[in-house]
Amino acid sequence: MSPSASSEILVVGSLAYDSISTPAGKTDRTLGGSANYFSLAASLFSKVKVVGVVGDDYGAQDLELLTSRGVDVSGLQKKAGKTFHWAGSYDGNMNEAQTLATELNVFGDFNPELPPSYTSAEYVFLANIDPALQLRVLEQVKKPKFVGADTMNFWISSKKETLLKVLGKIDALLINEGEAEMLTGKTNAIAASDVLIEMGPKAVVVKRGEYGFVLRTKEGHFILPAFPISNVVDPTGAGDTFAGAFFGTLAKSGKALDLAALKEACVNGCLLASFTVEAFGVQKLKELTMDKVLARAEQFSRITRL
Amino acid sequence: MSPSASSEILVVGSLAYDSISTPAGKTDRTLGGSANYFSLAASLFSKVKVVGVVGDDYGAQDLELLTSRGVDVSGLQKKAGKTFHWAGSYDGNMNEAQTLATELNVFGDFNPELPPSYTSAEYVFLANIDPALQLRVLEQVKKPKFVGADTMNFWISSKKETLLKVLGKIDALLINEGEAEMLTGKTNAIAASDVLIEMGPKAVVVKRGEYGFVLRTKEGHFILPAFPISNVVDPTGAGDTFAGAFFGTLAKSGKALDLAALKEACVNGCLLASFTVEAFGVQKLKELTMDKVLARAEQFSRITRL
Repeated sequence: MSPSASSEILVVGSLAYDSISTPAGKTDRTLGGSANYFSLAASLFSKVKVVGVVGDDYGAQDLELLTSRGVDVSGLQKKAGKTFHWAGSYDGNMNEAQTLATELNVFGDFNPELPPSYTSAEYVFLANIDPALQLRVLEQVKKPKFVGADTMNFWISSKKETLLKVLGKIDALLINEGEAEMLTGKTNAIAASDVLIEMGPKAVVVKRGEYGFVLRTKEGHFILPAFPISNVVDPTGAGDTFAGAFFGTLAKSGKALDLAALKEACVNGCLLASFTVEAFGVQKLKELTMDKVLARAEQFSRITRL
Repeated sequence: MSPSASSEILVVGSLAYDSISTPAGKTDRTLGGSANYFSLAASLFSKVKVVGVVGDDYGAQDLELLTSRGVDVSGLQKKAGKTFHWAGSYDGNMNEAQTLATELNVFGDFNPELPPSYTSAEYVFLANIDPALQLRVLEQVKKPKFVGADTMNFWISSKKETLLKVLGKIDALLINEGEAEMLTGKTNAIAASDVLIEMGPKAVVVKRGEYGFVLRTKEGHFILPAFPISNVVDPTGAGDTFAGAFFGTLAKSGKALDLAALKEACVNGCLLASFTVEAFGVQKLKELTMDKVLARAEQFSRITRL
C-alpha cells in the first residue's frame, strides 16, 4: 500500500530546538520536539498532519523537511517570538535525561486549533503536552478511529485529574516506564501496565528505553527487548519515534485495536527508535529509508526468536 | 530423557542463610547461597554434584532438600563454625540489593576439594566465588565439555588479573548487567557483551534482572525480556536460578556450544528465575515441577512472538 492510500494521522506536539549533551558528545540547537520525531517516523508509513507552534526563528529548511515527507503543516502556527528550546544532559545513564533548561517561548501559551481539513483524521496522537490541551484537540476531531496519548512526570504531579480524564477518552497510552510507575504507584512495568489497562485505555505501551517495551491489552502482555545498539549517541526522541512508527504502522494497516496490528506497530516502534538513538537529533530519521528498516526487521526477528 | 541419563553437572558455590528485606516483606535466616539456587534449578533437568562448605549449624532438612532432588552432596565439607550468612535489603529498586552484612564464617577459608567421583563431570559451573578458587576447581576436573562462571563487583575490583585468567579458560560467562559494564567500561549491555566475547568465553550471558538477558556468541545476539511477574517478592537467587536452569538444559541436551541449545538454555533460565522471585529464598524452587515450567514456557512463547 502506498502511504497516500492509507488513513491519515493527526499529531499534536512540540517543535523545538534542543541542546543535548551525552557521553558521546554534544550538539547545540538541533531540530527536535515530539511532533518532529513523530512525523518523520510516521510519514515513512502513512500521511501525517501536524498541529503545533513555532517561533519566527524557525528555519525554513526545518519546515521543508516535513513537507518533503508529505507532512501537512497547515496546522502549524507561526508566532512572534522564539521556538521552544530544551537543554538536557545524559550522564552515563542513557535512560534518563537531566533537564538543564526549558524555555517554552511561543509554546507557553499554545492553543491548538485544527484547520477544517484536519478534523476528519482517523488516527490521532496527543504527544506529551498539557492534558488540558490534549482534551481541546480531541474536542475538535470529529470521529477518530484510534486515539493515543503520551504524558510525563510534570503533568502527573501537576494535572493528574485532567490527565485521568484524557485516559478515559483514549484507545492507547504510550508512556515511559518511570512515569508509568509514578502514575500507578507500582515498582515495575508489568504491575504498572496491569493497573493502567484498568484506567481507560484499551492498549498500554510502557516504553523501557534500551530494554524495549511492554504492550498490555485486555488479552495480556506482548514484550520484546529493544533492537540492540552498542553505540547509543543520543536517546532523545526515541519514545516519540516509537510512537510515530507505531501510529504509522496502524494507520497503514487500516486497523486499530487488532492485536496482531498492535504487535507489529510496537516492533516497528522499536526498529525506528533504534535508528534515532544512533545520532543526535533527527539526523538518522532524515536519511532513513524503508529498505533499512526492513533489513533491521529481519535481524530483529533472528535476535529474538528461538 | 530422564535426568539420570543426562550428563552430570558440577557446581561450586555458596550455601548460606540469608536475611532479606524487600518492599514485599522480610525473612530471617532463610536457606540461600548460589549453590542451593543453582542445584535446585538444575536438578529439574539433570544430575548435579555440589561442592561447597557449611557450618555445624547447617540444618539436616536443608541437606535433605538437595539429596531428595538427587543432588550428590559428597563434595560438601562440614566445618566447625557457622554457615555463611548474608543480609541484604531491596529498597524500591528490585534490581539491586544493598548488602547489610556479609559474615563469611566457614566460607572464609573455603578450599574446594573434589571427591574422585566428581572429577569426570562434563558440565562445570563456577558460581560467584574468589576467581583463585574457581581456577583451583578447574584444575581438578579432568576433561570438562562445557565450563561456565559467574563473578561480581568485589572480584572485578580486587582480583581482576585472576578473573581474566578464568575468562580465558571458560566456555560461558554469566554475569549481571552492572558487573558486565564495570568489567568492560561500557555503559550498556550490548556494548559490554561485544567486549566480553573477545575476552575468552565463547558465549556471554548478560543477566538484566526484570529486563531479561542478552546472549552473545560469535554468531551475534539473542535477546529476550524476563517472563513478566507483576508481584516480585524477592529477587535474591534469580541469577543463580537462571544459571542452574541454563546448565541443566545444556547437560540434558548433551550439547555445549550449539546455538539452538544455548538459546533454549537461556529461555529456561528466564522461566525458572520467574518462579524464584515470586517468594522469599528457595521456597518456590522447592515446590517447582516440570509441568509448571512447561505451562509458563507456552505463555512466554505467546508473550514474545508476533
